[in-house]
Amino acid sequence: MLRPPMADPSFQSLPGFRDFIPRECAVRNYLFETWRGVARRCGYSEYETPILEDTGLYLKKSGGELSAQLFRFEDQGGRDVTLRPEVTASLARLVAQHQRDFPKPMKWFEIGQCFRYEKPQKGRGREFHQFNVDILGEAGPAADAELIALAIETMLAFGFVAGDFVVRVSDRKAWMDFAARHAIAEECVPDFLNIIDKLEREKPAALATKLAAFNLTPEAVREFIAMPTNASSAYQAILADLTARGFAGCVQLDLSIVRGLAYYTGVVFEVFDAKKSMRAVAGGGRYDTLVATLSGGNVDLPATGFAMGDYVIRNLIEETTHAAMQMEVWLQRNAAACDVFVVVADESQRPTALRLVTDLRRAGIAADLPLAAAKVPKQFQSAERSRARFALIVGTEYPALKLKILASRAEETGHADSAVAWLTARLQQPDGPLLA
Amino acid sequence: MLRPPMADPSFQSLPGFRDFIPRECAVRNYLFETWRGVARRCGYSEYETPILEDTGLYLKKSGGELSAQLFRFEDQGGRDVTLRPEVTASLARLVAQHQRDFPKPMKWFEIGQCFRYEKPQKGRGREFHQFNVDILGEAGPAADAELIALAIETMLAFGFVAGDFVVRVSDRKAWMDFAARHAIAEECVPDFLNIIDKLEREKPAALATKLAAFNLTPEAVREFIAMPTNASSAYQAILADLTARGFAGCVQLDLSIVRGLAYYTGVVFEVFDAKKSMRAVAGGGRYDTLVATLSGGNVDLPATGFAMGDYVIRNLIEETTHAAMQMEVWLQRNAAACDVFVVVADESQRPTALRLVTDLRRAGIAADLPLAAAKVPKQFQSAERSRARFALIVGTEYPALKLKILASRAEETGHADSAVAWLTARLQQPDGPLLA
Repeated sequence: MLRPPMADPSFQSLPGFRDFIPRECAVRNYLFETWRGVARRCGYSEYETPILEDTGLYLKKSGGELSAQLFRFEDQGGRDVTLRPEVTASLARLVAQHQRDFPKPMKWFEIGQCFRYEKPQKGRGREFHQFNVDILGEAGPAADAELIALAIETMLAFGFVAGDFVVRVSDRKAWMDFAARHAIAEECVPDFLNIIDKLEREKPAALATKLAAFNLTPEAVREFIAMPTNASSAYQAILADLTARGFAGCVQLDLSIVRGLAYYTGVVFEVFDAKKSMRAVAGGGRYDTLVATLSGGNVDLPATGFAMGDYVIRNLIEETTHAAMQMEVWLQRNAAACDVFVVVADESQRPTALRLVTDLRRAGIAADLPLAAAKVPKQFQSAERSRARFALIVGTEYPALKLKILASRAEETGHADSAVAWLTARLQQPDGPLLA
Repeated sequence: MLRPPMADPSFQSLPGFRDFIPRECAVRNYLFETWRGVARRCGYSEYETPILEDTGLYLKKSGGELSAQLFRFEDQGGRDVTLRPEVTASLARLVAQHQRDFPKPMKWFEIGQCFRYEKPQKGRGREFHQFNVDILGEAGPAADAELIALAIETMLAFGFVAGDFVVRVSDRKAWMDFAARHAIAEECVPDFLNIIDKLEREKPAALATKLAAFNLTPEAVREFIAMPTNASSAYQAILADLTARGFAGCVQLDLSIVRGLAYYTGVVFEVFDAKKSMRAVAGGGRYDTLVATLSGGNVDLPATGFAMGDYVIRNLIEETTHAAMQMEVWLQRNAAACDVFVVVADESQRPTALRLVTDLRRAGIAADLPLAAAKVPKQFQSAERSRARFALIVGTEYPALKLKILASRAEETGHADSAVAWLTARLQQPDGPLLA
């Protein structure tokens, strides 16, 4: 049968979208399981919102640079819809609708995919996974501290130690006070904060011009940032709280941080690698008016939250030896396709082998067997490739069974009638550094 | 501050898209964890593909009723793209690209979201989650049997028993032989199979007219379906294999099943509730030419796979008492926001309580505390609402600590220095039927 020699070029993944072959999927699962584990340990409940939303949800409230990057289109029903660029707006909508049913504060988390239509580049695709954590219904700085503590716990859970990373904390309130003192009108504050947000990325001349419109100089702004006494009282409370937890060494005041999104109202923070050689690993802050805005004023709930994407944290893990090793150990332990590979040494015993594999699986043991008749050495090769710990040989001596420990080549024998109990017990004993 | 009285109507989820509040998200996680657990026990490796793909991937190869329901649009770069309606086409693309790196057969699974633009109705949204399981690189019926065994194991893992469900197995080859015997041209076979697919849903007169075009009558077709001897040899081999595994009672021949998608080439099957009162719970079959087609003939890999969506299986669980009870037990066990709720009986001890919570969390214990000062009875109320097993009281008698078992109201005392070891040991002992 003749076929065209080249693959149809349309059959590739879209630019900026990733395929996850098993090893990549395992890395993804490592991030997800670590995120989920930390959040549960810290008393957060998991939720999820749709990945497609009415565009109005983002255009009207998120503001900032987000609206230019929306993955936006018209659906078949003529709706203006967007693949979610972030989850906070959906959460605020969801919470406005359901908060009555939950005691406050609500500590909620989510792990899911977000989308931005921007030029794909190294370390930034058109889709990414994000860990979102929020505390709703508590206005005090104890909630911000609890949230920042979770960000720190997450870094520690990935194997980072104090000194590998730092949480830079700021407070938009300090800037609002600054703006008031410098007679910046309330409606101009978002524009002013946008200038602060880009302070270090803006060209000096452009920066000076932009600040001049507010009768300010870059020097005046930098001087404000440099003064620790400009920290808000919320920051002081957060620092005391985190110090009590043993996290003082992980936190720094950094008033240059204001975050890009328009909905933040108070404390904001970003997590960076200690060398600040990468973009922020995570970021977030307080958004006390978003729920009220999205519910048309029906529900007024103070809130604080943060998000961590999968691209930057993975980069940082891979570039930090001890964190990379911890991930590698996890990947090794999860790379096995099965624990027990059944070798059918006598093809006439296949029905017996099928039953045995079924019994093992039912007992919670990951078990497999070759699907086609093959010579015994080839089956052992398949067993090795599956990274199973044990090969269990079903042959002419059945119901006697031979067990081969693949790491050590040691052999044991057992009886088919007690195979499940035998293998269950055997799997609980370690038998080597790599496959333990 | 005056706010408009009504919520902006645009701030609702889109029709057919679901919000998952924590209880709904826990149900989703129950499905996901069960699917993932079964697949791993049976030796499958997890992968993932993008949820957005070039539309060509679906238009040209999936065929059948799918193309009418595509969630399709033009992206900002002028690309014709589609939110994936299914995962098999993406898998075939991925495998064509990477199969060289993996020993055969490849046993792969995926859990993810799919989208169809159709009228939302009870039990069918515009998005749904799907469990996809495939075996690639093995052409024999042993692969189909292994795959059907996984479908059965999945049902058993959800708590269904033989008699609750049945796997109806068919083979397109039997119909291709039938077509050849009735002089139906090869290029007309897809149209003919479409008629068979809708046999029981089509109005009698329309059915007769459509079959007449092939010189056939509804009676001739029904007679063919009713004859067990028309089963293919592959079906016989699958039945023998599944019988050896103890699954004979879960399988039935049903030649009326041909499946809607154009890419199936051989054995096809669907899982139904025993009363057949719902749509199929799962379905799949052999697609031996899809990888070759999508790789432009570069890679030729036989394959068989199936998918199970989250809507129908959840319905069936909820309508089957023993399966519903198993899920409820899982949900109860996973509903607790934490295991240990720390009560700050003396607010001056808050720093101590923060440190204690941090230590417990670091030891893997889910622990929480109130974020604001509150009277002790109110804190106990919060502890109850969090569904914690224990309240740990930090008060004036610190470093002595009081532990209250919330189910039994029993109390114990311990010392702060050994709190982690004490709580770890205590959590391993059951203390009541509901919270064990």
